[in-house]
Amino acid sequence: MKAEIIAVGTELLLGQIVNTNAQAISQQLADLGIDVYFQTVVGDNPERLRQAIEIGRGRADLLVFTGGLGPTQDDLTKDVLADYLGRPMGIHEPSMRVIEELFSSRGAHMVESNIRQAHLILGEGSDPLDNSTGLAVGNGIEDSGTLYMLLPGPPREMEPMLLGPGTAWLRSKLREERPLYSRVLKFAGIGESNLEAALIDLIDGQSDPTIAPYAKEGEVALRVSTKASSEEEAAIKINATVSVVAQRVGEHLYAQKDVPIEDSVVELLRNARKRLASAESLSGGLFGELITRVPGSSGEYVGGVITYTNLMKHKLLDIPMSQLEGDGAPGAISESTAKLMAENVMIITGADFGVALTGVAGPAESEGKPVGLVYFAVAEKGKETVVYTSHFKGVREMVRIRAVKSALYRLWQALKA
Amino acid sequence: MKAEIIAVGTELLLGQIVNTNAQAISQQLADLGIDVYFQTVVGDNPERLRQAIEIGRGRADLLVFTGGLGPTQDDLTKDVLADYLGRPMGIHEPSMRVIEELFSSRGAHMVESNIRQAHLILGEGSDPLDNSTGLAVGNGIEDSGTLYMLLPGPPREMEPMLLGPGTAWLRSKLREERPLYSRVLKFAGIGESNLEAALIDLIDGQSDPTIAPYAKEGEVALRVSTKASSEEEAAIKINATVSVVAQRVGEHLYAQKDVPIEDSVVELLRNARKRLASAESLSGGLFGELITRVPGSSGEYVGGVITYTNLMKHKLLDIPMSQLEGDGAPGAISESTAKLMAENVMIITGADFGVALTGVAGPAESEGKPVGLVYFAVAEKGKETVVYTSHFKGVREMVRIRAVKSALYRLWQALKA
Repeated sequence: MKAEIIAVGTELLLGQIVNTNAQAISQQLADLGIDVYFQTVVGDNPERLRQAIEIGRGRADLLVFTGGLGPTQDDLTKDVLADYLGRPMGIHEPSMRVIEELFSSRGAHMVESNIRQAHLILGEGSDPLDNSTGLAVGNGIEDSGTLYMLLPGPPREMEPMLLGPGTAWLRSKLREERPLYSRVLKFAGIGESNLEAALIDLIDGQSDPTIAPYAKEGEVALRVSTKASSEEEAAIKINATVSVVAQRVGEHLYAQKDVPIEDSVVELLRNARKRLASAESLSGGLFGELITRVPGSSGEYVGGVITYTNLMKHKLLDIPMSQLEGDGAPGAISESTAKLMAENVMIITGADFGVALTGVAGPAESEGKPVGLVYFAVAEKGKETVVYTSHFKGVREMVRIRAVKSALYRLWQALKA
Repeated sequence: MKAEIIAVGTELLLGQIVNTNAQAISQQLADLGIDVYFQTVVGDNPERLRQAIEIGRGRADLLVFTGGLGPTQDDLTKDVLADYLGRPMGIHEPSMRVIEELFSSRGAHMVESNIRQAHLILGEGSDPLDNSTGLAVGNGIEDSGTLYMLLPGPPREMEPMLLGPGTAWLRSKLREERPLYSRVLKFAGIGESNLEAALIDLIDGQSDPTIAPYAKEGEVALRVSTKASSEEEAAIKINATVSVVAQRVGEHLYAQKDVPIEDSVVELLRNARKRLASAESLSGGLFGELITRVPGSSGEYVGGVITYTNLMKHKLLDIPMSQLEGDGAPGAISESTAKLMAENVMIITGADFGVALTGVAGPAESEGKPVGLVYFAVAEKGKETVVYTSHFKGVREMVRIRAVKSALYRLWQALKA
């Protein structure tokens, strides 16, 4: 099946927002085995939206719209499509009741325009798509062999509708005996090109399950997909492939679902009832920020220090100035300083693990050391501290995110050991 | 002038990356007064790319391509367009020399495919666009009244080319007597809806200069645009509007260019020769992370502590446990704790300013206090510490970013005072 995504909204054409919806919908359609051939963005303009529908209909079997389902006069996706298909518009009563209840519970007066959010294109082959996080009802329509799916624009409404009722509706229309099942494998501590090189024969040669790599921010993922007549059959086929992958790069495989490595680290800390502290130099707080993105991480992460200057490494981490500065001193950017930072933050905070990062984020070199050189250390109570050295490529922000993701990976390794 | 943006790359259609280039190009075209009517994404497929060119040419005067200028066989934008226009392809010698020099300086063997990056579509009205951060040369072509601009895909190559030689080329083609000039005003400590409410008569009523608000991550911006026959004339008109805006919301206006508030804060610290330290609870390192995104901020930011638990607030910041826990204690999430955190981190580190954040990021309430409640404090040597209370809406990550941006705003205020 060939699909086209049509995002409707002048704010996209003005560059006021980025089209994250196109990415989310593309990913989900890929997971369902549907090929996206085009993405289009069109403004809140009935003429040009109609043009986009006409073009899309000529080159795709499925048009997925996002945006233009709200209450204002600019929200015209349903009106234009109803008109294009020559179908009447009606009220979806369950959605109407939700809107009415909301307004009466707030003691607010419902304005005429809110009714628009309960509009549905009528006729055979038209189904409502529930909106669990907002008021505008979605709509799936099969008309003359073409599928149309209408999703809201705000991502917090669009995504639940896409993944829930939208996907169920699409699966019912695919009518495939052997639908596509996918599993995402997440890797850390290995670059995309090295992962590809290690698996190139599988990526190129294997057709069932297929294996496709893709890079995320500082992490690498692999999607394993197969067609099967049941989830159980799919699991057996995918597990067999995962075993082969794990034999080659298993030490980098931290999750069989699409979660960032900080989630896996917090989970391992929780299971082991261990607590973590951090000492950051070049990353300036990014390590703590990523760990504390995980809800409830205050049980596992006690905190730490950001020691951006030598004096702070001395004051907050008791590192002797003679270690950091002066003739023959190892300097702030060194293996031994990374080791001291990790050990001292663990001792000072009383945590079970201490992680430290020191290095050169750029744009200029520091202490005569090149941009991208990073030392990180993982200290663990009662064990020998391990120090790692990496040389990351890329601009300042890339060096920082890669350094932090690598430190998380080394901590993950220590927790798995 | 009507424009269409055509992004070329199968990775976009698979949802592997988000189309940030479309946003950046749309913004720049808006700044130049060019209307973007469509954005299209097409894969690395010659047939479908040719279709997209054909459709775009029928509805736009300017087609801006991004992607497909690299060395691989998948990079086919120049080939397909040359074929479509019936023009020959040639080598751009200056670009070729850069590529040759790079390979010889690395002692590496240049493969045939690298020559593709120096390709240029030939003939009248075709100009090279220099790539200052990569190898693939860009191309601007005027053909039968239509403009074609070819930019690379990687944002760190695309953006410098777009803003530099790309914009110069476009301005030369616009041949307007009165081109559009814009200035971005950045605000902090005020929400988009409150800013709009304060300026609604100007936004709705004023046609020259025009005023358009838009929201960025935790910040709010306003674009002031006017057509003028010179930069000086434009500056006079825009300055007059800025004066009116400043009379109403001047205390929130921190920059007349599109920079995040952390840039302005670091600049003010630098000018005042003052140094900053931070004590973070709910933000978990995000404050430090944003400040240290600014290159060279190690001169102004010494570092600080992430005290994610009560024990750390006690151990790292000397806050008495009786302040944090027990009957009648103010608790970790309180005005007085925020004040102590800011003052103590300033004293411990010896910095001139201390900023502290404590609050409830969610998803659950804490100490019986609701999600979104945040206290932040700004301590300054020799001055009374000021504590602020805010109640932010939104999910965990929104609460955290808004809290940090607000703290930066309050620090900015203290530095301006």
